[in-house]
Amino acid sequence: MSCPSIPGLLRELRRLHRLASAGEILGWDEQVNLPPDSAAFRGEQMAEFSALLHREATSDAFGALIEDAESMLRSGALNADEVLVVREARRDFDRATKLPSEFVSRKAAAQSRAYHAWTAARAEDNFAAFAPLLKEQVDLAREEAAFHGYHGSAAYDYWIDQFDPGMDAQTIAGLFEPLAVDLPPLVGAIMDSPVKARPDLLRGFDISRQESFLRDVIARLGFDFNRGRLDRSVHPFCSGCGLDTRMTTRFFEDNPLDSLFSGIHETGHGLYEQGLPAEYIGTALGTAAGMAAHESQSRLWENQVGRSRAFWQYWEPFYRQAFPSSLESVSSDDLYLAINDVHPISIRVDSDEVTYNLHIILRFEIEKALFEDRLAVADLPGEWNALSRKYLGLEPSNNSAGCLQDVHWSGGAFGYFPSYCLGNMLAAQLWHAVNTEMPDLQNQFAAGEFSGLLSWLRDRVHSRGRHLNARSLAEEVTGAPLSPGPLMDYLTERYGSLYGIAG
Amino acid sequence: MSCPSIPGLLRELRRLHRLASAGEILGWDEQVNLPPDSAAFRGEQMAEFSALLHREATSDAFGALIEDAESMLRSGALNADEVLVVREARRDFDRATKLPSEFVSRKAAAQSRAYHAWTAARAEDNFAAFAPLLKEQVDLAREEAAFHGYHGSAAYDYWIDQFDPGMDAQTIAGLFEPLAVDLPPLVGAIMDSPVKARPDLLRGFDISRQESFLRDVIARLGFDFNRGRLDRSVHPFCSGCGLDTRMTTRFFEDNPLDSLFSGIHETGHGLYEQGLPAEYIGTALGTAAGMAAHESQSRLWENQVGRSRAFWQYWEPFYRQAFPSSLESVSSDDLYLAINDVHPISIRVDSDEVTYNLHIILRFEIEKALFEDRLAVADLPGEWNALSRKYLGLEPSNNSAGCLQDVHWSGGAFGYFPSYCLGNMLAAQLWHAVNTEMPDLQNQFAAGEFSGLLSWLRDRVHSRGRHLNARSLAEEVTGAPLSPGPLMDYLTERYGSLYGIAG
Repeated sequence: MSCPSIPGLLRELRRLHRLASAGEILGWDEQVNLPPDSAAFRGEQMAEFSALLHREATSDAFGALIEDAESMLRSGALNADEVLVVREARRDFDRATKLPSEFVSRKAAAQSRAYHAWTAARAEDNFAAFAPLLKEQVDLAREEAAFHGYHGSAAYDYWIDQFDPGMDAQTIAGLFEPLAVDLPPLVGAIMDSPVKARPDLLRGFDISRQESFLRDVIARLGFDFNRGRLDRSVHPFCSGCGLDTRMTTRFFEDNPLDSLFSGIHETGHGLYEQGLPAEYIGTALGTAAGMAAHESQSRLWENQVGRSRAFWQYWEPFYRQAFPSSLESVSSDDLYLAINDVHPISIRVDSDEVTYNLHIILRFEIEKALFEDRLAVADLPGEWNALSRKYLGLEPSNNSAGCLQDVHWSGGAFGYFPSYCLGNMLAAQLWHAVNTEMPDLQNQFAAGEFSGLLSWLRDRVHSRGRHLNARSLAEEVTGAPLSPGPLMDYLTERYGSLYGIAG
Repeated sequence: MSCPSIPGLLRELRRLHRLASAGEILGWDEQVNLPPDSAAFRGEQMAEFSALLHREATSDAFGALIEDAESMLRSGALNADEVLVVREARRDFDRATKLPSEFVSRKAAAQSRAYHAWTAARAEDNFAAFAPLLKEQVDLAREEAAFHGYHGSAAYDYWIDQFDPGMDAQTIAGLFEPLAVDLPPLVGAIMDSPVKARPDLLRGFDISRQESFLRDVIARLGFDFNRGRLDRSVHPFCSGCGLDTRMTTRFFEDNPLDSLFSGIHETGHGLYEQGLPAEYIGTALGTAAGMAAHESQSRLWENQVGRSRAFWQYWEPFYRQAFPSSLESVSSDDLYLAINDVHPISIRVDSDEVTYNLHIILRFEIEKALFEDRLAVADLPGEWNALSRKYLGLEPSNNSAGCLQDVHWSGGAFGYFPSYCLGNMLAAQLWHAVNTEMPDLQNQFAAGEFSGLLSWLRDRVHSRGRHLNARSLAEEVTGAPLSPGPLMDYLTERYGSLYGIAG
């Protein structure tokens, strides 16, 4: 990569990134370290900081730098790396500047109200109290999309494109349809199998030993602790960039797999950030390709790798060494089955990798219907429960465990959910490709060697920055368009053999 | 406190404080959490952030708010609180705006060079390599003072006033002189005493139990952990404000008193910050009175309180309970003597509360001579060693343990050292006053009750913000001018009786 012709723009992008990443440290600190009574003050700090950052990211001087670079682009003076940097800078700049400040304040105020209303509504299982604020969020989302030229139901495409450049609702609908058809029968067959996972056997895992085991795993997967950390927070997340990557997880004595796989999931995100070209962080060359691509990395390490036989061939002895008494009466087969437990539940974030996709399809169908004016907010709970019956075979016990369970919509984050399932698809495609290219991969895992996979991902995915998006990434890396086939094949194969289901 | 007439200025001061305090979190995180290879990136983040902050703190809009308030002040429309806020805002604004940006960059670059040169020079015991950069720092300090109207040897007064408003070199010289005369004989008498402290008896103190004991102490002294934290760092410090107070210490298995008293020292700083009027944080009403006042709080809790008989009457049983085997063969008298060990050493930061003052007097005399052109930088080591012999009765084994030991000068921080000893003086005066007013205080300590002292300090010192400085604080609170007498009396009494020295 090289950008010799646009040094001024690069300098300003790096400056803005350094400031934004300082804000990320504040956000990380809020989740990890904040004394309880300091929350209001931190809110004020972050609000002032965001306002200042927004002013910097929308300055006339920055706009002029982009214009200068664009005139060079038009004259053909820029190389492909530079073209990408300029186009993405323009995209971000326009997004930040095209909204009238009146709208920005109005939306921020409405989001704050909606978030608090959602918290209360979920606690009290009172959808009616949240409904008008959710309606307002949908309207604001439409209004924002219109400022960028997306009108009517195209507003949903605008929002999808925010998280996954180049993606739209129709494409996603086409990708999700086969999964909506084929996944429920697979789940049904697993449920009908006489083979039963017993995750409840795993109890009483000392928390400091859980953490030290997880750190060993993370380090061996290739995460560089010299430029990153692992801490504890209520909700696991990964923030920062490859120059200072902050991951978190949480620990439960009686649910050791939750922390372990949350930790490996965040490590997938962290490895992606640490694999982006360090010298171009802050520009499109050093930025992840989108949310689906990011999730493809976290899900691949968590599921395809972390729940594989080969992975546990290596780690099981160490796991038993760390928790000798807790695992004494758990056989190897029971341990592996618990790791690959599949059963439908109402809550998305606690779901296994098979049913998880159905949770996403449900949410996508609801978002799509909302933006196409086929579903009124008031009818959302009924539709949610009907789709839940259809896809998961169960109805949530109440709206708190149903359509009120996720925070996303209260923050106006429509179009985000599909990324999770698109990420699973892409992960399965990458998994298929790398195993075809490196037939020895599973033996490497069994020997505790994960650098072969990481190098491959660095080369094919991480190093490319935003040159690719989820779709072009699938095509370039695997030679096939993004599709649900490999995900379906992977799930059928792993769970079919584990649960003794005829192929 | 109330400031009804200047809402706009208050709003801007609070905004600037929120931004500055976000920068403090970055600084805290750098000391406490930073992954080793992320240091360069953090340096860049902090540089960009500081530049942005400086721009905000010197904006025309802020200047106009101050001018408006000043015209109200001139017309007599402001109350005493408002007058203070406006005057201090002007002082800070002028300080930030009177320096040409060429000078600011030149100084920043020179400081960075000087810091790295000092690190190397100390490691290699090579004063000659550092000398030209130290000379440059003195010249820059003079140049900066001149921008503010302080010329010639008055430059030193400018710098002293930076840290302790209202203080100057001549006043300090008068305050230090009696100590320079009376302390060395006291130290000599302690050294000649047959009573010998044995801090080396305290070994093998489990670190996690040290931390938990320290947390118990800190909480009982009154620090509010709901709006503050204690973490670990190489050098103990306290940062943040009362809305989110971050203290650090460090732990050594074979030197448990270091971490304990460092922790109590930082708690003194933390209690001051938490006692400032929360609603006026960011203005002079919610800002500490100066460095001497700040040190008076940390030193009072660390020394007058933490090393007292009454304090240990309460805590000794808990200390023994936490470290039964390590303290088994240490008698109560030996423990108390170890806590109050006095002996001259070369290193200031490791010195006891008696000899510490002599280290400060030495540094003050050198700084004063440098700014009065009575001492050339090249002659500094000789002068240092001569003063060390004179005051401490010893010569450092080399310059690394002598004139190169402190970081301050490499960062251009001249005039800072005196605050430490002024703080000790003020602490002794406050101590005398509170014990006179509350004759029961020692009994309260012995019963584990420290809120009486804290309430008194809150009322007399913390709640006053910057209405007072070190000198007026002494006069208003103790009824007597700031003076070395009470410090000398306190040291003579505590150590005279402990070491059996005839009064």
